[in-house]
Formats: sequence, C-alpha cells, structure tokens
Amino acid sequence: MNILIKNVHVITGNMNNMYTGIMNIAIKKDTIYYIGNEIPPGFKAERIIEGREMIAMPGLVNAHTHSTMVLMRNASDDLPLERWLNESILPKEKKLTKDIIRKGSMLGMAEMIKSGTTTFLDMYLEMETITEAVIETGMRANISYGLQTCDRLFQGTEFAAKYCSDFKRKYDNANNGKIKTSIEVHSVYLCDEELLRANAKLSREINSPVHIHLHETRIEVETSKLKYGRSPIKECLKAGIFDVPAIAAHTIWLDDEDMQILKDHHVTPVHNPSSNLKLASGIARVPDMIKMGIDVAIGTDGAASNNNMDMFEEMHLTSLIHKGVKLDATSVNASQTIHMATINGAKALGFQKIGMLEVGMKADIILVNTTGLNNTPLNNPVSAIVYSTRGNDVDTVICNGDILMEGRELKTIDEEKVKFEANAAAKQLLES
Amino acid sequence: MNILIKNVHVITGNMNNMYTGIMNIAIKKDTIYYIGNEIPPGFKAERIIEGREMIAMPGLVNAHTHSTMVLMRNASDDLPLERWLNESILPKEKKLTKDIIRKGSMLGMAEMIKSGTTTFLDMYLEMETITEAVIETGMRANISYGLQTCDRLFQGTEFAAKYCSDFKRKYDNANNGKIKTSIEVHSVYLCDEELLRANAKLSREINSPVHIHLHETRIEVETSKLKYGRSPIKECLKAGIFDVPAIAAHTIWLDDEDMQILKDHHVTPVHNPSSNLKLASGIARVPDMIKMGIDVAIGTDGAASNNNMDMFEEMHLTSLIHKGVKLDATSVNASQTIHMATINGAKALGFQKIGMLEVGMKADIILVNTTGLNNTPLNNPVSAIVYSTRGNDVDTVICNGDILMEGRELKTIDEEKVKFEANAAAKQLLES
Repeated sequence: MNILIKNVHVITGNMNNMYTGIMNIAIKKDTIYYIGNEIPPGFKAERIIEGREMIAMPGLVNAHTHSTMVLMRNASDDLPLERWLNESILPKEKKLTKDIIRKGSMLGMAEMIKSGTTTFLDMYLEMETITEAVIETGMRANISYGLQTCDRLFQGTEFAAKYCSDFKRKYDNANNGKIKTSIEVHSVYLCDEELLRANAKLSREINSPVHIHLHETRIEVETSKLKYGRSPIKECLKAGIFDVPAIAAHTIWLDDEDMQILKDHHVTPVHNPSSNLKLASGIARVPDMIKMGIDVAIGTDGAASNNNMDMFEEMHLTSLIHKGVKLDATSVNASQTIHMATINGAKALGFQKIGMLEVGMKADIILVNTTGLNNTPLNNPVSAIVYSTRGNDVDTVICNGDILMEGRELKTIDEEKVKFEANAAAKQLLES
Repeated sequence: MNILIKNVHVITGNMNNMYTGIMNIAIKKDTIYYIGNEIPPGFKAERIIEGREMIAMPGLVNAHTHSTMVLMRNASDDLPLERWLNESILPKEKKLTKDIIRKGSMLGMAEMIKSGTTTFLDMYLEMETITEAVIETGMRANISYGLQTCDRLFQGTEFAAKYCSDFKRKYDNANNGKIKTSIEVHSVYLCDEELLRANAKLSREINSPVHIHLHETRIEVETSKLKYGRSPIKECLKAGIFDVPAIAAHTIWLDDEDMQILKDHHVTPVHNPSSNLKLASGIARVPDMIKMGIDVAIGTDGAASNNNMDMFEEMHLTSLIHKGVKLDATSVNASQTIHMATINGAKALGFQKIGMLEVGMKADIILVNTTGLNNTPLNNPVSAIVYSTRGNDVDTVICNGDILMEGRELKTIDEEKVKFEANAAAKQLLES
C-alpha cells in the first residue's frame, strides 16, 4: 500500500540532520519514497495520514529483550540479580510451556508496538514458537536461538548444532526479510569454555551473529577472572565469539581494555538502564563508550526486571542518568539517545535498511502525538521525544510499510484477547 | 457529595499496611468515611464508582515545583544548572507577565491532575495570580511567596514583610483549608546574609514554614563555604531559617553533619531526580537520609528542567537510581517510594489529614487503571505503581472529596482552552 503522511515533524535518527522541520513523507509499498515539502508528482497514495501535531521518527529498536518475561512483571522486585534469577525467575521458568511462551511473547509484542517499538532482539526458550508469533504481529525481529537452549531438547552440541543450522535456514530473512536470526550465547557465567568454543565455531560455520549477556554484574566479571584468569570479554575474544558480529547486552563493568576489544571487534553493547538500575547491576560507561566511537544500542531487557517494555522510558533514563553520574549536563544528549535507540540498534540486529527516515530506507515509522499536556508547548521536538514524551503518546506504528497500529488501535493483534490469554498464562506460571 | 468506590485495590501509603487487597471506599463529603469489605450500613452514596481493575491510592504530593515553567519545557536542554539558569531561564523570565504566569500555571496544574497529583508546593513569581488559579482548579497547594519575589514589586524588606504577612492572612487555609502558605527563601546563593536573617525573622513572626533550594549543586556548596565559611545548610541554621518548619528542595551535596542538621531540625528534603540528573546537579543521598530516619519527599521541580510534571516518573526514578548508584537492589523499595510521594510530602506541606488512605483522612484519592498492557498481568499492585505504571494510567482524581478528573476528563479545567492559551503564552515568552 502507498501511504502519504502529511505535515508531520520529521526526526530522522541521523545525527547530521536530526530534525528537518514539518514535511510530507511518501511510502511506496515497503519503502520510504520521498520526504520533503511537496507531494511527489505522480505519487498515488491509497492512504493519507494527517500528521499535523505529530512527530514522525524511525520505529524504535529494542536491542535486547526477553519478550515472554512480561508474564513475570512486578512479580519479584527489590532483589539483586543473582537472587532474582536463581530464587525467583529460574524456578518459575521450569513451568514454562510452548503455550505459555507464545502468550507471554504476544503480550510483550503488543506492549512494544503500543509504545513505538517496531524491531526487537529476542532471546528466550522455544524460539520457533516466538518466531511464529512475531511473524503473526508483522514486527521486525532478530531471534536468538542457541545450543544452550537446545540442550533442553537434545543431548550433545552436535545434534543441537544441526538444529541451529536448520533454524537459521528456516527463519533467517523470513517474512519479507523482517526476521533475522542470531546465535544465543547466554553468558560466560552460564556457558563453560567448551560451550563458548562450540558456539563460536557454529556461528562462524553458519555465518551467524551472536547475542550474549556480558559484564552485567561485578560478580560475573570477578568470577570469570578467578575461573579463567580474564574478564568475560577477554574470554569471549579468546573463544572466538567476536569472530562474527556480536551484540552484547548490559556491558557495565568494563575497563578500558574491555572497551577497546568491543570497539576493535565491532561488538554492539546494548544499554538496559531500567534493568541495570533495578537489579543494582550498576551503571554502564555509556558516555565513555560514545566518546570512544562505540555504537551503543538501547534495550528494555525482560519486563521481569524492568518492569515494562517501553523504549521511551529507556531513552529517558539513558539521557538522564549519565548526566547525573558524570556531572555533565551535555553528556548523552537527546539526539545521541534517539540515534542509539534507532539506527545503532538496527545495524546491530543486522537490518541495514531501517533506523533512519531517509529515502530508500524501509518504512518503519512511528507517529507521536504531541498534543498531550506533557508535550504542550512543543518547544523542541527532539527534546520532547526524550524528555517529556511517554510511550502512550505513540499514535501510529508502521513497519515495512504495514500499519501495525493507528489511533492507538492495534491492527495485527487482538489486544483484549492477548491480555486475557496472558493473564491466564501468568496464573499458571506464578501460582505455586 | 458522598461517593462509594467499589471493588478497588487499596494502596494506603502507610508503611505498616501498604496494600490491603480489594475493598470498598466510602467518602462522606470531604472525608474518607470507611474502607473495608462491606458497604457501611446507612451510607447513602450519591455517586458510585466501579473500581474493578483499578488501584486506589493517595493523591500524589509534588513537594517542589514551579508550575508556570511548563511554558519553557524542552526549550533549553543539555545544559548545566548555572548556564541553564543564567543564560536561558532568567532572560526569558524577564518577559513574564501576570497573564503569562496564570496561563503557564494552569497548564502545569492540568498536567499534574492528569498524572495523579492532587497537592503541590509552588514557588514562583506573582503568587497571588497562581493562588487564584489553584483555587479555580480545586487542587490542594502550599504557595511559597517571599521577600525576594516581592523585591520585584517593592523597595525594601520592611514593606515587603507587610505584603507577606498580608498574603498569609489572605490565603493561609483558604478554599476550605486546601491552600497553605510558606515563605520562599530562594536559596543561599541568591539571598545575602541580611535577606536570610530577614526571612528567618519574618517566618518566626508570622509563624510560617519556609521553602528553600538547598545544596543543589557542588558549586553552590563550595561558594557558600568560601563566602560564609560554612555550607548553605549551616548558614541557614545560623540565620535562623530552621527555627520554623522548613522544606528544602534538592539537598544533594550533603555531608553527615548537614544531614544531622536536617534531621535535628525536622527539615524535609525534597528529592527531584529528573531535574537533578538532567541539570547534572548530582544524585542525592536518599538511601542514607532514609536510614538516618529523615522523611524525604519527592517533587518534579519545574518542567523547564524535567521536562514534565509527572510524579509517576519521579517515583520510578527515585526507586531505580539509588539501587544502581548504591549497588543495592533493596534500596528505596516500592513501598518506601510511595510513602515519600504521598505522606512525607503531605506532612512537609503542612497538610496533616492527607497522604494516606485511612478513615478520617481527607478524600484525596486517585484511581489508577491497571488494564493497560504495561500493567498486564497485575502481579503486585505496589510494584506496579512504581515500576510499570505511567502517569496517563491515572483514570480518576479526587481532591477533598471533589472529582477533578474522571475517565481522564478534567472536570475543573477546560483542557483544550488551557492548551491553546498556554501555547500562545509560550510564544510570547520564547520568541525573541
């Protein structure tokens, strides 16, 4: 479908040209065909969306999450990561079924679309089930599946490796290129050296990026140093994990050498401020990474440690906390934050044609309603997005040229059904 | 009017009994008459509100703000406090008129009600104008007016003192006790020793609390030490500012002696996390203050440095950032945060009968809709309020038994008119 969005404030996501004023955007099928003050001659729009008092910006990219975990939101709070994981989350996860995972993941995706996320990176269990759900919603996602996950299903990594290679063949670039895949390497603390090397070998063999939790807590780093004589990042380097493109969630406790390794090997660190603060994991050195030229992305992490899936909240936190911690009000400014939440995430997840509003890019566009009291007066659209907009201000979500939400109504998901089913699934999971 | 709220989750604000399950709440005129599982015999409700899938909690208390500054939201960002204040805010404020202030303040109040605030502490210019606007909205507020403000109007503190005493006589306990007043002492950095002492003398004479910015930046504290040989808190103590109840905004750069003075003199520190982070002022020692037994309140500060008036966002930040900074996930838990944002603020502002949902308290109650995707499933109402609720989830706001908002529709404010007028006022203020 060809869509014309008229008279809309345009935030591009591009650092050189973040805000271009009020313009028209023409979408031809799945692609941005025109951005400018005219209506391109000969362009036939099947849908015209009036964008007055709206901001158009790239769909947000949630670069690290576990969508299903929304079922466990607010269920175990005010606990440090190790206790939260071992005493609360892992015992509940033993009760997970394919059906529960599907229902949780649908809820997570519904929440993401409603708060402006079009693309995400998911790592969990039963990834075929989740991938089928993603396809149903029309979202764009990179799906992490892995040897470790497969160990639930299979004995031995060799058979698991075949499963992974089949998974990649089946889903990579599926649904018009909206699905990408990556190898899940959960973490250095849950993978022994042998499994790390097996993952690295597999990822090279099938030419797949990897997705890993890295340097989330001080204990994780200290334990690795005791066990391997080096930090988790150095252990990954040694095992060959960074021989392929890698996406590293959290990356909090980094020394300068660790950061240099990330930079040299084009590893994308994903900042998860809510989760990192809430689990008291620490505060990532985001300003230092930016200064070093590392492209940092942003994610919500799972909602069991967030406790929601709202990327506007994560942008807000990203722009605020580092100013306060660094005592530098110019640190991580609004444009940098938007850049991190869009193009940096897009590139890391392997989607080269999204993350910016530019002619030729895929049409992943969200429209933010600026008429709320919280954005009146709209003095600066870029600041407004980061400092005063809430996820619920998102009015319309377009992914790959398809409308996933309009006027806050989900178009590919039955919201009431998803909530009903998720509530029932949560009951199964949480009742002892 | 007598109101019955049925089948609602009740969060009391009381640390000993924070969540009581699903109950009915009966309001008789301006007072909470009953909370329990029954309908009190003989109680005649003129309005019945179905509270199913809602959380009832005390109206939030925004304990430090400058409501009018919403006009300057998103207008100057990514600057440190001194440059932000001197280069951007103060020059704009020279253009303020009574009309602009009234329109800005109405916008700020509309935004506060829509995000669940029933009570606030306002400090700005033209406080008569603002007080009349507060009365119009039906909100509860403590209004800070002062010698320094009056210096714009009058020459000399003696005449100004008479103005202040007249102001207090006119407005203290006005509008059925919903208005309280306090003396504004802007800060040690803007008041010289003589003005500090004059403020202290006046506040003792007319028996008024004071409201002051204290220890907001490191520069402020260092300058005071150079100028007076002591910290601003010690300078206030010496000048007699703490002889009356005091509300101290920010209180970031405190040593243990400063904290002990706050505790000994029952000064209420107000934590303003968004503003403190955004202006890179620093991070207040909230967990240390709580441990010391100091009752900390929460505020949004002005929206020019926030950039909104949403106390849910401030609660969220309060509960998150100290966990991350202290590396202690048990720090500032959800119940403590709610307590700070309700009863601690209420007491500091001089309202003894609000801040908790208990029989005999004034009926300042908000109803939070929990059916949004961000609160599905509702595993724990207390966690949900702090970790996953957004300001726009507030459905109904009751202040002193009067409904200020229902179904997100403002009842005492014409939202469209306020937005229209505020946009015009902002144009006057911001266009050079």
